[in-house]
Amino acid sequence: MYSSQGDNYLYDQVAELVSGMIDNGTLKAGDRVPSLRKMSKQLQVSVATVMQGYVNLEEAGLIESRPQSGFYVRSRPRVDPAPPKKTNPRALPRPVQFGNTVETIFSLANQPDIVPLGIANPAPELLPVRALNRALREVISRDPEASVSYTFAPGNSELRRQIAFRSADLGCEVAPDDIVITTGATEGMAVALQVVAKPGDIIAVESPTYFCGLQIIERLGMLALEIDTDPQDGMCPKALARALESHPVKAVLSVANFSNPTGGLMPEANKAEVVQLLARRGIPLIEDDVMGDLYFGNSRPRSYQAYDREGLVITCSSVSKTVAPGYRVGWVLPGRFRQQIAHGKQLNSSASVSVTQMAMAEFLRGGHYDRHLARLRRACREQIERLRYAIGEHFPAGTRASRPQGGSTLWVQLPRGVDSNVLYQRALAAGISATPGTLFSATGKYQNFVRLCAGHPWSERIESAVKTLGELADELSLGERV
Amino acid sequence: MYSSQGDNYLYDQVAELVSGMIDNGTLKAGDRVPSLRKMSKQLQVSVATVMQGYVNLEEAGLIESRPQSGFYVRSRPRVDPAPPKKTNPRALPRPVQFGNTVETIFSLANQPDIVPLGIANPAPELLPVRALNRALREVISRDPEASVSYTFAPGNSELRRQIAFRSADLGCEVAPDDIVITTGATEGMAVALQVVAKPGDIIAVESPTYFCGLQIIERLGMLALEIDTDPQDGMCPKALARALESHPVKAVLSVANFSNPTGGLMPEANKAEVVQLLARRGIPLIEDDVMGDLYFGNSRPRSYQAYDREGLVITCSSVSKTVAPGYRVGWVLPGRFRQQIAHGKQLNSSASVSVTQMAMAEFLRGGHYDRHLARLRRACREQIERLRYAIGEHFPAGTRASRPQGGSTLWVQLPRGVDSNVLYQRALAAGISATPGTLFSATGKYQNFVRLCAGHPWSERIESAVKTLGELADELSLGERV
Repeated sequence: MYSSQGDNYLYDQVAELVSGMIDNGTLKAGDRVPSLRKMSKQLQVSVATVMQGYVNLEEAGLIESRPQSGFYVRSRPRVDPAPPKKTNPRALPRPVQFGNTVETIFSLANQPDIVPLGIANPAPELLPVRALNRALREVISRDPEASVSYTFAPGNSELRRQIAFRSADLGCEVAPDDIVITTGATEGMAVALQVVAKPGDIIAVESPTYFCGLQIIERLGMLALEIDTDPQDGMCPKALARALESHPVKAVLSVANFSNPTGGLMPEANKAEVVQLLARRGIPLIEDDVMGDLYFGNSRPRSYQAYDREGLVITCSSVSKTVAPGYRVGWVLPGRFRQQIAHGKQLNSSASVSVTQMAMAEFLRGGHYDRHLARLRRACREQIERLRYAIGEHFPAGTRASRPQGGSTLWVQLPRGVDSNVLYQRALAAGISATPGTLFSATGKYQNFVRLCAGHPWSERIESAVKTLGELADELSLGERV
Repeated sequence: MYSSQGDNYLYDQVAELVSGMIDNGTLKAGDRVPSLRKMSKQLQVSVATVMQGYVNLEEAGLIESRPQSGFYVRSRPRVDPAPPKKTNPRALPRPVQFGNTVETIFSLANQPDIVPLGIANPAPELLPVRALNRALREVISRDPEASVSYTFAPGNSELRRQIAFRSADLGCEVAPDDIVITTGATEGMAVALQVVAKPGDIIAVESPTYFCGLQIIERLGMLALEIDTDPQDGMCPKALARALESHPVKAVLSVANFSNPTGGLMPEANKAEVVQLLARRGIPLIEDDVMGDLYFGNSRPRSYQAYDREGLVITCSSVSKTVAPGYRVGWVLPGRFRQQIAHGKQLNSSASVSVTQMAMAEFLRGGHYDRHLARLRRACREQIERLRYAIGEHFPAGTRASRPQGGSTLWVQLPRGVDSNVLYQRALAAGISATPGTLFSATGKYQNFVRLCAGHPWSERIESAVKTLGELADELSLGERV
């Protein structure tokens, strides 16, 4: 619901107040919501503003209007699905064999007329488009030649300064000269893996884990070893310790902050434990921190990097999930591997694009980032909540859904026997995208799981798509029982 | 000397007329150049314009002014260095082992205060900076959200349409849907090599060859096999045929149009011969065509792609050497490997930056490219000529220099025994960059060669740097003789 206009901010305030009253039990199903006039007085905003806030809540399915009478809390109570249990992949190291599956799924899912439950990026209306375009115009006016010229590795120095400045939020201190700019975090992870491991080497990952990391492991001819993972707390340190004893793990690729797909957040003590565990064995840890700024709690969780004393943690991040997917601005905090990472980046795609580095540096320097993030976090949290409740309402009994503590993705466990690849196909035929669970494992697990994304503002169209998905899942689970 | 202002165009006209008269013998050393007034009348331009054209010629070392008397053709005749001979590397396939050498050399050479004889990109003043920035502003105004959003593989459709449209210049026909956009040609070549070969496989290359290709071969753990190459005519088809009989060559990586470093142009018959030779054996040919538009002759040479009937030629190109190095806009014409190349590109760095693709599409659509290229070609040809004559004048006897037919690089053979790595070090200490010949071979050949680049408008500063380089080379060759 956020846009750069101040009015939307006010509508949000109204909606949040009421949704808070529903959440904490002040308002129960069937209760009348405070009148427009009363709320207008209380919040010191116009009646029209309150009205719009209520309309938004109605669209989101929380309240309903009754003619001549006002707004009421919807009579059907929210159903809060239970989260999936801790995984126990018990897998051996094995090659990833996706082939073109991921591209096929995404090329079909990225049509503009498809309801985008398969896309983890924030909708354009949630992005600071105007501020970015302003920054872009500003930098090309100020330095017309720079945008056309090469920016040699390790990348734009002002951008590196801004990233270094913000690294305090991650709980660590990184000098601008240590940072290597990459074309998105994808390139950072690929280069980092190539620096620390060779084809045939074993890489430990979460289970489920983001398919992008698995695809890189596939391309580099490495083996993935899936580790027990809690949808809430992330990779299980004890399970990782056991795996290190059984297998010659060469590196760990992990997301501590807001796993894609589960939205889980690793407790700080677990991060410290994993970093120490690996330090004792001299094993590098490649961290994907692209979701780290999208926390729903009170403060930014630390990254693994904060606990590293040995220079073994390589943190990859980007602005793709928070500010500008199309800018492809990413970076690596390379620990002790600075020289090799800079070299590998150079070989992988030479310099990165100049003008988006310049514009992003300008955007960060202008102090827009924190304000934007605060709004985006609120939007993601709200969208995820709506999605969870809609699943509770529309999906077959026994469906579970993760309880994300950040990010924009939800991990949904369908009743046993429901094949999410079939669900994906049928959903697509109905104009809805979703991501089958099997993409989040190297071993074909999670067939009855699906990842749903909440990067878009809640709307009737999305609510209705979730309902359709629920019906399709129901058909599939009935078919299974027959 | 070119800039976007019309005046410079007029100065160039003056300079070209006079330099043409010197070239064709109308004006000889010591002759008086036509007076300002006469030339002004003849060309219908102002006396001030002629004066500036003459001053430019003077700076370029072709004419000299004598007080109270006018301009005269310089009395010392131009020395035209002989080209280096055909190479005969007689090498076995072997791994490339550059390590960080290339980065070290370039990080030192890319300081702004260094005379840039080591940099192959055109100087910013030769690039269409204003038109590009205009295109950039235009696209973000027209579609504010698109620049911030992902552009999924195979890339911006209007850009692919423009590239397809221009592929007729290469002598081939490529559909927009076949083209895959990459982050520069570097990424295209890396992805293409990964698609057609595996670690340990043998890749045939020219000798000398562009170090960027060798670096990719190194990173992918493949082996380079150097083939006899004529500095003028490129890779020798007979030598390639022999190599194919002795070694299980998995792919060929070749530059037919304006080799970097030699500037050589492969005759059309040789291109056809190489393509047919490889087609008979089903061996893919990866072509680096980034210099193809920088021809000094009357028309754009064809690419290997024009002779391909089997879909075995993969053409990689970009705008980095012609329009906008900092945009990192490259593309692949993938032959029969379209799906694998698109997949590999996706894995390598996911989507490419949106806004530079949009701006480049707009630039091409606006018809700016051909006008810009015509000027850039004239500038490069002139700069290369000046560089060759300056080498003839200032370098030790016995120095040879290639005779580029396009591009912006010159391959210089120093007297036997001169170590170009020492020359590079001493030049750097004197504030001049140059590229040691050993970077152009996997086998440490070409120690007494150096690549010099002519991407910058000729100036006294550059003339003086070439003189210094010549003196340094002279010292080294004397040291050798002692």
